[in-house]
Amino acid sequence: MNTLRTVTLDNGKETEIFLADDLKDLSAHLGGYGRSVLWVFDTNTAKLFKQLPPVHVVLESGESSKNFTSLERILSTAMDEGLARDGRIIGFGGGVVCDMAAFAASVYMRGCRLTLVPTTLLCMVDAAVGGKTAIDFKGLKNMVGSFYPADEVLICFDTLRTLSEKEFLNGLAEVVKHALLSQDEELYKLLLTKKNEILARDGETLRHLVELSLDVKIWYIEQDPKESLGIRQMLNLGHTFGHALESSSHFGLFGHGSCVAWGTGRALEAGASLGITDKAYATGATKLFKSFGYDMDYRIGRGDWIDFKEHLSKDKKKEAGKVLFVLMEGQGKATLKPLELQMVQHLVIAKPIF
Amino acid sequence: MNTLRTVTLDNGKETEIFLADDLKDLSAHLGGYGRSVLWVFDTNTAKLFKQLPPVHVVLESGESSKNFTSLERILSTAMDEGLARDGRIIGFGGGVVCDMAAFAASVYMRGCRLTLVPTTLLCMVDAAVGGKTAIDFKGLKNMVGSFYPADEVLICFDTLRTLSEKEFLNGLAEVVKHALLSQDEELYKLLLTKKNEILARDGETLRHLVELSLDVKIWYIEQDPKESLGIRQMLNLGHTFGHALESSSHFGLFGHGSCVAWGTGRALEAGASLGITDKAYATGATKLFKSFGYDMDYRIGRGDWIDFKEHLSKDKKKEAGKVLFVLMEGQGKATLKPLELQMVQHLVIAKPIF
Repeated sequence: MNTLRTVTLDNGKETEIFLADDLKDLSAHLGGYGRSVLWVFDTNTAKLFKQLPPVHVVLESGESSKNFTSLERILSTAMDEGLARDGRIIGFGGGVVCDMAAFAASVYMRGCRLTLVPTTLLCMVDAAVGGKTAIDFKGLKNMVGSFYPADEVLICFDTLRTLSEKEFLNGLAEVVKHALLSQDEELYKLLLTKKNEILARDGETLRHLVELSLDVKIWYIEQDPKESLGIRQMLNLGHTFGHALESSSHFGLFGHGSCVAWGTGRALEAGASLGITDKAYATGATKLFKSFGYDMDYRIGRGDWIDFKEHLSKDKKKEAGKVLFVLMEGQGKATLKPLELQMVQHLVIAKPIF
Repeated sequence: MNTLRTVTLDNGKETEIFLADDLKDLSAHLGGYGRSVLWVFDTNTAKLFKQLPPVHVVLESGESSKNFTSLERILSTAMDEGLARDGRIIGFGGGVVCDMAAFAASVYMRGCRLTLVPTTLLCMVDAAVGGKTAIDFKGLKNMVGSFYPADEVLICFDTLRTLSEKEFLNGLAEVVKHALLSQDEELYKLLLTKKNEILARDGETLRHLVELSLDVKIWYIEQDPKESLGIRQMLNLGHTFGHALESSSHFGLFGHGSCVAWGTGRALEAGASLGITDKAYATGATKLFKSFGYDMDYRIGRGDWIDFKEHLSKDKKKEAGKVLFVLMEGQGKATLKPLELQMVQHLVIAKPIF
């Protein structure tokens, strides 16, 4: 178990990100906590254990578990087991499990200890780091939650072995997004030159990829831990369009990452047509997404527009009632702008520009 | 509307405590917020308005509303009305309303703006200030919640006019508790010398009482905003015994304040019998409580002990599995100690020592 990075967020609270050599190394670390620990799994990650730890909650896998019912299940189990404020909740799974475990830890007795073990690429490079916790509410993503950084995040690439191609690509979309937002071009270049190694999940390449991706996220969140200074919001690149697609297709049709890839494509198009984003940059970035197989040309049906627009209007990034979109001014440089509804409509249901 | 105090809690977040001259002054301030505001009342405070503001939730008055159902009602209304992250939730009521409004504000889109208008003495001197939000869960008080200081707390003594004697005494118990915890004796002396004026709710005396009481609370919470340094916990004087009584009698038999008064009496007895608290000090403080009519001699029935003990064991203040009690070493000086279960039993079901 080696320290990969240390993130210092709000109020000096530190999150230690560890890299475990293998599952045995991971187990040894977690086994050290003994009692006063509650584990949260989903039906997929629970299968990784021959015998589950004594105190645990297993959530149905998938986005539909990210709700108040799951929250109450975790809190209720914690109380039944007499978990104290110095007890620990361990989230062992992907984004849904980690978001649920973290939200529960943040409100149980107003905050207990928290360990996250992200088992998907998406969760490793995004959800598990940065302290955003959330549940979906009334059909909208992440509407209720808190800021509560984990005490530690344990990454073990062995947990990725059984990850489906689709799930892997879900995570990779956030990595490509980070590559665009990075202050240097190292990650972008890695994605351009090591496509085959990445898709083959080569250990050394994966470690490099995750480290560079984490560095981008950490750069933004350390400057603006609570997303109150207009810096951290840039990490939402592709998410305004993406969440609306994800919500309006009821979390089923596309994975989160694919929606973000698609949404980033729309944001690049918007920026290009407004003269904010260099056209060649937009074309190159779109090509990079396409090289990994993302459907950047997808358009919603005319009949789905009302629903899409409705979900868009519920976005959390608003100023004077107008939804704000993250647009790219160039490598590592983003800006927040409202967009005319007509343009949005054109972007999501018209033919692609690139 | 004058600034009474400014509290700086976690991360430099400031809570402005204002004193309104009268209800008109209060309305003028609140009316200035215009739209993007959600009001939370209970069935009592809703009666204070001829016409309720357009977006509101009215909770059934009483502790039983402090639950997930109320939380979801508030969040659901906020979403239906399209409240954004820069929108505001206004809690207008006693501790239950303020705790609910604050908890909802802390998790709605991971935190929106929050104004609290405490309408009970208890809430003015305690619940509304300091950022603790909570709901009861599985029959136990404040087991789920967050730290989320209000942006502003608006105190208006006119709202106390319709407060019942019982509710007023509920608040006064926290004031007496603050008097014991104060670094000086001004509040203690005020309580000793102005009993009649206090009980008659004389405006000038009330203002002096509330200011001194707030100063004590602020002294503790500014040093230890998240109750992680063993300082803020001292404000829990009387609460370990008190909460157990409150929970085991299902929130009905006694008010919160009366339970805290009773609990403080038990803590004073415990301290005295362990040689931690000066006997004369314990006797004097108990007498002060009694002078305001609190039942300090109440004892639970033998048959209620199991239930009481069970609730005691769920207390949040634990170290190595042992519940910690706040005991007084003298004026303004408290300490945290575990107590033998046998002693606790003796204190809550035996005859009074004083």
